[in-house]
Amino acid sequence: MMAESQEILLQKIKEQGDLVRKLKAAKEANEKAKKTVKEYDLKEIDRHLCSYSYICGYVPSNCDVELYKSIGKNKDFDRYKYLRRWWYHMRSYSDSEIELFPMTVLPTKMYIENNVCDDQIQEEVKKLLALKKQLTVEDVVPQKFTLKTPKGTRDYNPQQMAIRNNVLQKIITVFKKHGAECIDTPVFELKDVLTGKYGEDSKLIYDLKDQGGEILSLRYDLTVPLARYLAMNKITTLKRYHIAKVYRRDNPAMTRGRYREFYQCDFDIAGQYDLMVPDAECLKAVTEILDALDIGKYVLKVNHRRLLDGMFEACGVPADKFRPTCSSVDKLDKSPWEEVRTEMINEKGVSPDAADRIGKYVLLNGGVELAEKLLKDEKLSNTKAAIEGLEGIMLLLKYCELFGIKDKIVFDLSLARGLDYYTGVIYEAVLTEPIKIGNEEQSVGSIAGGGRYDNLVGMFDTKNKQVPCVGVSIGVERIFSVLEAKLAAGEMRVRTNEVDVYVASAQKNFLEERMKICTELWNAGIKTEQSYKKNPKMLTQLQHCEDSCIPLAVVLGESELKRGMVKIRDIVSRQEEEVQREDLVKELNARIASLNKRGINGV
Amino acid sequence: MMAESQEILLQKIKEQGDLVRKLKAAKEANEKAKKTVKEYDLKEIDRHLCSYSYICGYVPSNCDVELYKSIGKNKDFDRYKYLRRWWYHMRSYSDSEIELFPMTVLPTKMYIENNVCDDQIQEEVKKLLALKKQLTVEDVVPQKFTLKTPKGTRDYNPQQMAIRNNVLQKIITVFKKHGAECIDTPVFELKDVLTGKYGEDSKLIYDLKDQGGEILSLRYDLTVPLARYLAMNKITTLKRYHIAKVYRRDNPAMTRGRYREFYQCDFDIAGQYDLMVPDAECLKAVTEILDALDIGKYVLKVNHRRLLDGMFEACGVPADKFRPTCSSVDKLDKSPWEEVRTEMINEKGVSPDAADRIGKYVLLNGGVELAEKLLKDEKLSNTKAAIEGLEGIMLLLKYCELFGIKDKIVFDLSLARGLDYYTGVIYEAVLTEPIKIGNEEQSVGSIAGGGRYDNLVGMFDTKNKQVPCVGVSIGVERIFSVLEAKLAAGEMRVRTNEVDVYVASAQKNFLEERMKICTELWNAGIKTEQSYKKNPKMLTQLQHCEDSCIPLAVVLGESELKRGMVKIRDIVSRQEEEVQREDLVKELNARIASLNKRGINGV
Repeated sequence: MMAESQEILLQKIKEQGDLVRKLKAAKEANEKAKKTVKEYDLKEIDRHLCSYSYICGYVPSNCDVELYKSIGKNKDFDRYKYLRRWWYHMRSYSDSEIELFPMTVLPTKMYIENNVCDDQIQEEVKKLLALKKQLTVEDVVPQKFTLKTPKGTRDYNPQQMAIRNNVLQKIITVFKKHGAECIDTPVFELKDVLTGKYGEDSKLIYDLKDQGGEILSLRYDLTVPLARYLAMNKITTLKRYHIAKVYRRDNPAMTRGRYREFYQCDFDIAGQYDLMVPDAECLKAVTEILDALDIGKYVLKVNHRRLLDGMFEACGVPADKFRPTCSSVDKLDKSPWEEVRTEMINEKGVSPDAADRIGKYVLLNGGVELAEKLLKDEKLSNTKAAIEGLEGIMLLLKYCELFGIKDKIVFDLSLARGLDYYTGVIYEAVLTEPIKIGNEEQSVGSIAGGGRYDNLVGMFDTKNKQVPCVGVSIGVERIFSVLEAKLAAGEMRVRTNEVDVYVASAQKNFLEERMKICTELWNAGIKTEQSYKKNPKMLTQLQHCEDSCIPLAVVLGESELKRGMVKIRDIVSRQEEEVQREDLVKELNARIASLNKRGINGV
Repeated sequence: MMAESQEILLQKIKEQGDLVRKLKAAKEANEKAKKTVKEYDLKEIDRHLCSYSYICGYVPSNCDVELYKSIGKNKDFDRYKYLRRWWYHMRSYSDSEIELFPMTVLPTKMYIENNVCDDQIQEEVKKLLALKKQLTVEDVVPQKFTLKTPKGTRDYNPQQMAIRNNVLQKIITVFKKHGAECIDTPVFELKDVLTGKYGEDSKLIYDLKDQGGEILSLRYDLTVPLARYLAMNKITTLKRYHIAKVYRRDNPAMTRGRYREFYQCDFDIAGQYDLMVPDAECLKAVTEILDALDIGKYVLKVNHRRLLDGMFEACGVPADKFRPTCSSVDKLDKSPWEEVRTEMINEKGVSPDAADRIGKYVLLNGGVELAEKLLKDEKLSNTKAAIEGLEGIMLLLKYCELFGIKDKIVFDLSLARGLDYYTGVIYEAVLTEPIKIGNEEQSVGSIAGGGRYDNLVGMFDTKNKQVPCVGVSIGVERIFSVLEAKLAAGEMRVRTNEVDVYVASAQKNFLEERMKICTELWNAGIKTEQSYKKNPKMLTQLQHCEDSCIPLAVVLGESELKRGMVKIRDIVSRQEEEVQREDLVKELNARIASLNKRGINGV
């Protein structure tokens, strides 16, 4: 009975705890919401700025910065002229100046009050503590937290690691075949390095806590660290690959291979070279990788940022709306044209006519003949950027033909790519068929992407010195998830260890003999295991060999050893053969070589 | 003139900026200092707690928690009885209760005021802003920040990567030889997973910023994530290796291979097995690794936590002082006994007599004969823990003899290891000679360490179910730094790419021919490179081959091609030979095979 009332009490505490947590979360959400532009009273701010230079007092402070960032330049400045004066003034400050502004608190009259107040939380916390006091000290068991990995991350167990290493090895082989060198960078960068590189996606960056010292963030991709590396070391040519984990606080979809911590496999060529030569080689490398991985039919879509710009220009989009319009086009792989059109018109401020003209172009895809046709297109042929892009595409397609991959390339005007930093060719590899796993079909879609980014390195150089770059990133997590699904469906098998020989014995107190044999085999470089028990059962030992796919066992027995013999057992055929004790290493090496030759061993 | 006065202004701004930064840093340092126990006015707090239950008002708050943590239990509670009452009360709260305490501000009377005041900072900031206003907007160039990697971290360039991959490959080979499987875990864990595992070192953990959602920290080692993995997946046996970066906010000493981001290579055996069998195999694996790396003579020091406990008990140290005393002993590899003795007496509360008794034991090291002698030692032989430890050591030494590594093992009573979680055997590999690099000698010291930790997994299990574990971690960063120093001194060379064939031509407009040959070689799996320029100079192409140690070049010429021939050039001997165009792949493969056989190719 006592225990039961305790349980009820614990339940009550849990419920009250949940309530407090919810209130706190609501408060936090409200505070976040406060900072969005909708919640600000722009009229009030404008009135304030009529008599004051800044939001708080006579020097700019963090309040000005926060407000400035939230308001954006799309506001109706015609209605708020003091706000406009202040806004343009704020815009003139550099980041390093802003850093030095004093910290103050935004006057509450400038935003709508939040409705969960601290008092309410305090009230509920008091109730919670009162409940807890009813528990005697002895009742408070050490509370274990939920055992899990952080949201959007996962462990790799030995089978998953075997798959992962196998995939990565194939990719590395191709990178090396093309002469790439390997580099690595720290998992975090100074926050400033990442600032201003990812546009809207910057909100997905993981920041480290300020524990005194530098302000750090986890890397978001491997491209920006590469650019930082090149600029910092004043390197002007490099062909490198980099395989490492990157971090994005996105909404994970783990079954489809979308994680918050995930691998990128990047291959990039930096240097001032002739047009499209390295660009085409990146595509060649991608085909070799996808062929080696053998996960289904694919196409490589290519397009050119200059052509997109030229196309927008020709369709009558103002230059300052190229990037927003481009990010609308980028959604065409997921949304129908009608939706994208609506977004362009309503959110990006493109005129309906211009949108319709764009709509005609982005439907197009093909090969050289399409590029040739577009070069004669009335509108495009009058736009310098479009001609530049089309000539680039034609050269790229020609090189692809020389590389023997023409049939895998599609020139696709709807390909736009999300990232801001691309300046030339862009590409994306897409699996064209869903993958069948068991009775289910899994649609994989985009599996690699990349492009040319000629201005990124210069952003890090004090003299704005550019290093042109082109590269591609393989989306291995999707490949892992397909292969893991196949494994789970029993359609493939992997070995998680590479042991060739198990040293077994049915004899009691034979641990020392086993240890001697193991030592001999290890010293001869043979991958060997034994039981860590003194007197393991024979059946257990042989079972372990079968479970772990170990092909050979050395079986020790007292009588054989006395005659200077040992038995070698083939685990699959169960055949045993006696060999001379002193020939053991030689015999085993011969058998292992023969197994490897027949491809029976290994993953 | 104009430019010059601008420069002076910029210089002034820089100086003023530095001043502001210094003031802010001083303020921050002061605020940190405030929180150390020395700065608290204990008398004042005691007086306050005479009339109040808590520091602020009638419910416990974060102030109580902060103060409680800072004060520790070593305080002179006899003098402050209200403080004592409050301290024991605070101790009764669980972490999850503490989490729910409201946030308040510690009354200033309770600590000594800091002397850099905010006003002063504001004053200097104003001056800075005034200076900046003198700059016209056009003068404000986009300010670039210092380009660097975060403190204590570094990039790996291709040469360093080649060294790193080479070292890791040798280590992995040994791990696999012993049948280890591979796992991986996320780079960050829920903070709770790491809490309470590292004792004093917990302050070195990197926390992530609270961006809403879970509270995360970067992993501090690979052992705690392994324990979490085992408990979470209810795995009771596993032999795994894990090679990954870990993170510690320590003071870096980068030239000696001490970083804030660094690799660990861990090999651990989890499972309920017979005494010392897996423990001895860990030592065997370490010897194989150090032999394979061939970086100098070494010894493996071994000791046993139970023996240390028994020794402390026998010397008259109270049980609650075992761990602090142990961490003093741990300093013996860096400090002389006299210093360690002083610390034991003054800081750890060990009596001088007990310290002197400990001093006699920790001088001892040897082999089986020492263990045998100690088993007969009057004091130790009366202590259960000591006997258990000594018997363990004797068994371990016996197994090491069977593994043929007896001459590398030293039973050393001064070995203590810092981490709290060890429960049995502990070990450490130490290079016994400094490494000579150029004219300098570099002392490397500890290069691997580990031990048995039988209670760690249970800390994560709701039913406290234990999984006994033993493991070892290879300190590869020190190995990298030695090899990198050798590389810098010109005592070794590494290849950063694996290209076998370079496709070259002196002919103008031969890019397309080169591309065709490259395609053929890539498709045949031959590691091939060419220039990305349309018309590269012959000398530049051959120079690249020499710089990159590429052994072979295919040299294309119009006249040869017309005759259906191509030239193969041996870069080192500079000999050229014409072969049939259609035999090119076959010819190259034969030459590459022969180069590989002669060991000329590769790193």
